Amino acid sequence: MTAIAQPDMHMPNSYDPRSAAGVAAATADLLARRDRVLAPTYRLFYEHPFHPVRAEGVLVYDANGQEFLDAYNNVPVVGHSNPIVQEAIATALGRLNTHTRYLDEAIVGYAERLIQRFPASLSKAVFTCSGSEAVDLAVRIARSSTGRRGVIVTGNAYHGTTSTTVELSPALGVNNPLPKHVAAVTAPDMLRDEPGQMIKDFEHRIDVAAAALDEAGYGVAAIIVDSVMSTDGLQFPAQNALQVVRDRATTLGAMYIADEVQAGFGRTGSNWWGFQAHGVLPDLVALGKPMGNGYPLAGVVGTDDAFEAFGRDMRYFNTFGGSAAAAAAGTAVLDELEDRGLLPQADRLGKLLVKELDATIGADPRVSLRHAGMFIAVEFSHPDLTPDPGRARSTVNRLRESGVLISLSGPHENVLKVRPPLVFGDEHVDRLLTALIAAVSEAT
Amino acid sequence: MTAIAQPDMHMPNSYDPRSAAGVAAATADLLARRDRVLAPTYRLFYEHPFHPVRAEGVLVYDANGQEFLDAYNNVPVVGHSNPIVQEAIATALGRLNTHTRYLDEAIVGYAERLIQRFPASLSKAVFTCSGSEAVDLAVRIARSSTGRRGVIVTGNAYHGTTSTTVELSPALGVNNPLPKHVAAVTAPDMLRDEPGQMIKDFEHRIDVAAAALDEAGYGVAAIIVDSVMSTDGLQFPAQNALQVVRDRATTLGAMYIADEVQAGFGRTGSNWWGFQAHGVLPDLVALGKPMGNGYPLAGVVGTDDAFEAFGRDMRYFNTFGGSAAAAAAGTAVLDELEDRGLLPQADRLGKLLVKELDATIGADPRVSLRHAGMFIAVEFSHPDLTPDPGRARSTVNRLRESGVLISLSGPHENVLKVRPPLVFGDEHVDRLLTALIAAVSEAT
Repeated sequence: MTAIAQPDMHMPNSYDPRSAAGVAAATADLLARRDRVLAPTYRLFYEHPFHPVRAEGVLVYDANGQEFLDAYNNVPVVGHSNPIVQEAIATALGRLNTHTRYLDEAIVGYAERLIQRFPASLSKAVFTCSGSEAVDLAVRIARSSTGRRGVIVTGNAYHGTTSTTVELSPALGVNNPLPKHVAAVTAPDMLRDEPGQMIKDFEHRIDVAAAALDEAGYGVAAIIVDSVMSTDGLQFPAQNALQVVRDRATTLGAMYIADEVQAGFGRTGSNWWGFQAHGVLPDLVALGKPMGNGYPLAGVVGTDDAFEAFGRDMRYFNTFGGSAAAAAAGTAVLDELEDRGLLPQADRLGKLLVKELDATIGADPRVSLRHAGMFIAVEFSHPDLTPDPGRARSTVNRLRESGVLISLSGPHENVLKVRPPLVFGDEHVDRLLTALIAAVSEAT
Repeated sequence: MTAIAQPDMHMPNSYDPRSAAGVAAATADLLARRDRVLAPTYRLFYEHPFHPVRAEGVLVYDANGQEFLDAYNNVPVVGHSNPIVQEAIATALGRLNTHTRYLDEAIVGYAERLIQRFPASLSKAVFTCSGSEAVDLAVRIARSSTGRRGVIVTGNAYHGTTSTTVELSPALGVNNPLPKHVAAVTAPDMLRDEPGQMIKDFEHRIDVAAAALDEAGYGVAAIIVDSVMSTDGLQFPAQNALQVVRDRATTLGAMYIADEVQAGFGRTGSNWWGFQAHGVLPDLVALGKPMGNGYPLAGVVGTDDAFEAFGRDMRYFNTFGGSAAAAAAGTAVLDELEDRGLLPQADRLGKLLVKELDATIGADPRVSLRHAGMFIAVEFSHPDLTPDPGRARSTVNRLRESGVLISLSGPHENVLKVRPPLVFGDEHVDRLLTALIAAVSEAT
């Protein structure tokens, strides 16, 4: 097998300032201004940075007036510049937008709506601003409640940007070594694993990790898994792998935290939450990205048991989390998802997309397709199944030039991440298919 | 001296569900609904929970139609329901609201505006959603850059709600014991310390803490101090105490992080940032609360040196941080603060408030006054200077009943926290004075 690219501080699909040829003058000027005032921690996408100025629904327009089909952004789940969400937020901002230490109908009403979309045991909510804060809080609750420190994550997991969630994020690369109290277990690999061994091996890796954490004196507070294993290259549903997670967490007396920042709010089409495809119930669920269609809204939903000890001993206050404007944004997103039937549409169009792709680029033995509703993964490999990140990167940049936005995923950055807003309709599917098939065919 | 109340999971000015007598039926119903769907980590303010339904400027209206003067909320710094901020956010939400991996004029323009309000050495910005995320990132940068883990905080500091910032927050009480790599040094006490010893003793406590962290093998990565020491009872400017912090950080090779979540954006009246009153320059500055007038916007501003190593080795991406809507909110707040002259107004009215209070309740030897612009602290003590939290709590609840919102602060919860939106004008000062003087006089 050829050498496998290792992730480092380099980000999948990142812009390299050393190869800035071909950047328009106006863009070059903005890049220079940006470098002067933004910290060097920022990264841009694409070989040629993308400079949007306007967006509506699934269409985005750049500074040159070129129209792009957005097949990437999951945050504006009910569409860029959604007027229902815009109006709901503006109304709240013009009436009342305080905090959860005052009584407010808005956040209670939203929590009721949200909770109703969960299985009955997941009955309580707490709100944050970001998915990172949500995961951070869920892990804090698990640690506080179990009195243990260890956490098990998947091999290329990404769970956030706080100090604690960065420790749970091997996807951040070699400059972000995991601490000893975090164990990463390689996720199932739906392309390469033996089907009959995939889940047994995954279970075995969890058991080995748990034993090591016990041995080191940390114990296991939580197993946290993104329900679609997106940064692991979209391994969904991987033969109900989450049943193993649920089972091992229960056996260990640890909490099972479902990270639904990627999977939640209908992304998988057939369900509101990704874990539901596995027939399991988590203890805590972390929510984020699409929850407010871009308004910073995230949170943790959990069982009474999971919150009990922490709620008794500690208070949690998030200044902006659960404000009336956040509740308004969240409520408008639920309204739009339901009123427009976006879950069944995602289910139908996701299947259609994969069927059409399978009938075209699927004939290439170096192309492998997976999907979870409207999250489609196209994996590129060499004939010996070693990853082919070059073809993936080339495809992403070809699509960008031809007016379609997607990005990359997977531990080897060889998986196309096609993850459009859920208002993506039949006409957009056609346009995406045409461009994607062409780009994949050209990028050999 | 009489016994001093210890903070525990009890929050200053918190509602106790066991004493719910006098709650109106509609409020009781909402409380019950709230308990069913919100996690038990939430706490409400006041003996009788406050239930607002509408707010404008510095006035808030509850469900019974009663008008309240807001002398507490620093987040809506340019006023509740500010139409300029509302319009700016709505416009961005209707045009474009993506993320910092695409090029966007909005966030660059805002960063330029923001940076211009800082001393020249503080030249780069990174954006987050919450002050907690900002402090968490600042500490992460300090740890990553110094290769050390230890952090020194003040004795009743509060720095946020992430796992890491909770560890820096002794104000969260006895159920939140600090880890060994965090050392809390008692803040200067402007009421009780000997003036000639106050700063020498503070410096000595820092040196002892640093030696202990070194001894334990952690070293000191950062000293972080709220520039107005608000949860320590508003100790400002405490004889330029931050000069000692700056000096010790430099000597130790540690970073000095200024937490400006409370102090920033003109709260102190005479300056944009609280540290400026001390004539010092921090390495990193954490911003939050008023930054977006309630839109979740926060960030870190720092020197080139402070960001250099971290920016080279790590990327930082915050999904909602630095979006166009956040930039629009932040820009509108700067516009309003400047166009309406709110800094000089805060300076003038803060001084007026304290002068009038000094001439009235100041005659009571058990009352002590401090202020930082429009952050006024009224501390209650017994004749032997032991704290009197009972009188403070009684005053806060009397004011709530008479239509004025404030809250409590300090390690002993005996300090009134008067911290209104900065659109607080002369007419509001009169109304506040009348109510405050009456409540303080009655609550003996």
